[in-house]
Amino acid sequence: MKKKNIENLIIKEIEIKIKNFFRKKIFNLHEPLFFGNETKYLNECIKSSYVSSVGNYVNKFEKKISNYTKSKYSLSVINGTSALHLTLLAAKINKNDEVLVQSLTFVASVNPILYCGAIPHFVDVENDTLGIDPTKLEKYLEYISIKKNNKCINKITKRKISALVVMHTFGHPSKIIQLKKICRKFNIILIEDAAEAIGSFYKNKHVGTFGDFGVLSFNGNKTITSGCGGMILTNNYKFYKKIKHLSTQSRVKHKFEFIHDEIGYNYRLSNINAAVGCAQLEYINKILRSKRQIFKIYKALFSNQNFFTVFKEPIYSKSNYWLQTILLNDEYVEYKNVIISKLNDSGIKVRPVWKPIHLLKHFKKSPKMNLYNTNLLYKKIINLPSSYSLILN
Amino acid sequence: MKKKNIENLIIKEIEIKIKNFFRKKIFNLHEPLFFGNETKYLNECIKSSYVSSVGNYVNKFEKKISNYTKSKYSLSVINGTSALHLTLLAAKINKNDEVLVQSLTFVASVNPILYCGAIPHFVDVENDTLGIDPTKLEKYLEYISIKKNNKCINKITKRKISALVVMHTFGHPSKIIQLKKICRKFNIILIEDAAEAIGSFYKNKHVGTFGDFGVLSFNGNKTITSGCGGMILTNNYKFYKKIKHLSTQSRVKHKFEFIHDEIGYNYRLSNINAAVGCAQLEYINKILRSKRQIFKIYKALFSNQNFFTVFKEPIYSKSNYWLQTILLNDEYVEYKNVIISKLNDSGIKVRPVWKPIHLLKHFKKSPKMNLYNTNLLYKKIINLPSSYSLILN
Repeated sequence: MKKKNIENLIIKEIEIKIKNFFRKKIFNLHEPLFFGNETKYLNECIKSSYVSSVGNYVNKFEKKISNYTKSKYSLSVINGTSALHLTLLAAKINKNDEVLVQSLTFVASVNPILYCGAIPHFVDVENDTLGIDPTKLEKYLEYISIKKNNKCINKITKRKISALVVMHTFGHPSKIIQLKKICRKFNIILIEDAAEAIGSFYKNKHVGTFGDFGVLSFNGNKTITSGCGGMILTNNYKFYKKIKHLSTQSRVKHKFEFIHDEIGYNYRLSNINAAVGCAQLEYINKILRSKRQIFKIYKALFSNQNFFTVFKEPIYSKSNYWLQTILLNDEYVEYKNVIISKLNDSGIKVRPVWKPIHLLKHFKKSPKMNLYNTNLLYKKIINLPSSYSLILN
Repeated sequence: MKKKNIENLIIKEIEIKIKNFFRKKIFNLHEPLFFGNETKYLNECIKSSYVSSVGNYVNKFEKKISNYTKSKYSLSVINGTSALHLTLLAAKINKNDEVLVQSLTFVASVNPILYCGAIPHFVDVENDTLGIDPTKLEKYLEYISIKKNNKCINKITKRKISALVVMHTFGHPSKIIQLKKICRKFNIILIEDAAEAIGSFYKNKHVGTFGDFGVLSFNGNKTITSGCGGMILTNNYKFYKKIKHLSTQSRVKHKFEFIHDEIGYNYRLSNINAAVGCAQLEYINKILRSKRQIFKIYKALFSNQNFFTVFKEPIYSKSNYWLQTILLNDEYVEYKNVIISKLNDSGIKVRPVWKPIHLLKHFKKSPKMNLYNTNLLYKKIINLPSSYSLILN
């Protein structure tokens, strides 16, 4: 068959099935809905006159997230990027340390490593979770690292490997228990970038609560949103005290004096944003049910074709299905860009996965393992419209 | 007279006059009021479902600030700290460059210098503006610097002096035209930290619009607030493009690909916060009139005593009078802490000026000029309750 015909077949397969089923005009990738107490809480917040980083909704939001995730401590911050930055600082990642991180991720997983003057070291993901491949990682670390004074040292670069940032891609849990074991073995700090993964569980435990730190995001495109917003999860009181201190310009407690004892940041969430977050969290289960339902619909709609597969949550996992994902079969990867482009033109908002970070020009010198799966998945992945408004609205 | 008696006299002077005049129980230092379109705009924002960094209120807020300040370009960001950070990055302040900044300031004026790996170099303020002393600064630069390849080099440290951060203390304009001339002479970038100074004008021109960049803050304790929030002002299109790029994770424009071409940040203001900012800005003139009125009241109340003077806006300036300020006369500075402590206990929320940054332990090695006025003002300054709710509520 001619290339043009195949391309059209795939596009029509997706377009017609989605349009016929959902009967809408525009299919957004991920838009939020607000049908709970959002405006009520916002009005109360304004009435209270507490709109900045001190206020009842900030405290409530943190408590509710702790209850929901079973994290011992939760600290709300302005976004996922600042959350990750604070975890790296609290973990004392030093300048020129190496931080292992998947290359198949949004750049916000990596930028905070640069803020610390540390060096991202890219590792590969696996096909069944889209997260870091534990077997490959362990072999790689055995090969490239050596233990000196209980520190994990990269034999080639002579630099300390300080931390591993695990991202739960599109909300699907990575093999976090295996990854945690590897971190313990090599004495590496484990940070979970669960920015996309609120409502995702691995063996019935919320992701972001396995590592030394976990990070959530409540950006507008996430499962629940507070406009801007992020949360740091930790079970370690010392870490919690440290991130809280750093997030408030490192101000020292004093009845009235303004004293600061180290470099600090302005990273606390405002009460206004927390008010919206509190309202959204109240109906997260309804949202999660809808997102799971959308997966089932796509699975059924696309069961009778051989162009692509619909990605299903990994074993032992309950995923929030943040972004619905299809993987083009090998023989059709060449059509990815045109499929994405034309579907977008037709009102079906789809997107590729992020360009792998090791391919961005300013990361080309960063150390990396063989990134076979990352490179391949980049060619195969398309995210389909995943808004729960497809069902709930 | 005994110390205890003098102390009591000063405290009673302030306490009784304030309580008798305003007839309240609690006198907050600076609390916001919301009596405009805040909840209306918030409800509209939620209804629109645009709650994150893209949305009408973000665009409107920037336009309104440009109109109000007559800045050519305005970029809204999450707070004043991030605003200042972006200006330093756009100005290409390099690692180990020196950045001149007053020591009498909030630590957020200085932390972004550290984020860039640059070195704060502390300069002194003057008594009539509480801002940087231009005469002293010029003499100092003539003495310590040399021009090499059109760069200003510190002869002692051999480092480049790249920028001057001028803070408009408590909203009172510094001598910004003189300071700008010095920057031009020594080829130094001028950044105005006008975080406290929205609504303040020098020779009828809004502060923050004299330098290469200006920075505003809309934190909860500021003249107008958006919960969290800041704004960068610039008249330079290239600078504007650069800060916008950096503030959105340095993502390159593309129909669908995620490509980033340099280190980036997650610093854009959310539409929710911008909605509140828009509403507050609509009645800024009413707020400013009230704040000026409070100054006049304090001036009148405390005209018949010799313990302290009430600080008045400098010549050529129209100040927003963000924080009302008294300066203890030299012979009473020893009572500062006890006055502050006891007034706070009595419900009159007062505070000292920030501990000068050069006295904080992690800045002790930073270069500095003789900071005579800074050290003296630290002993003399007390901020009185400045909430416009004293009058408007």
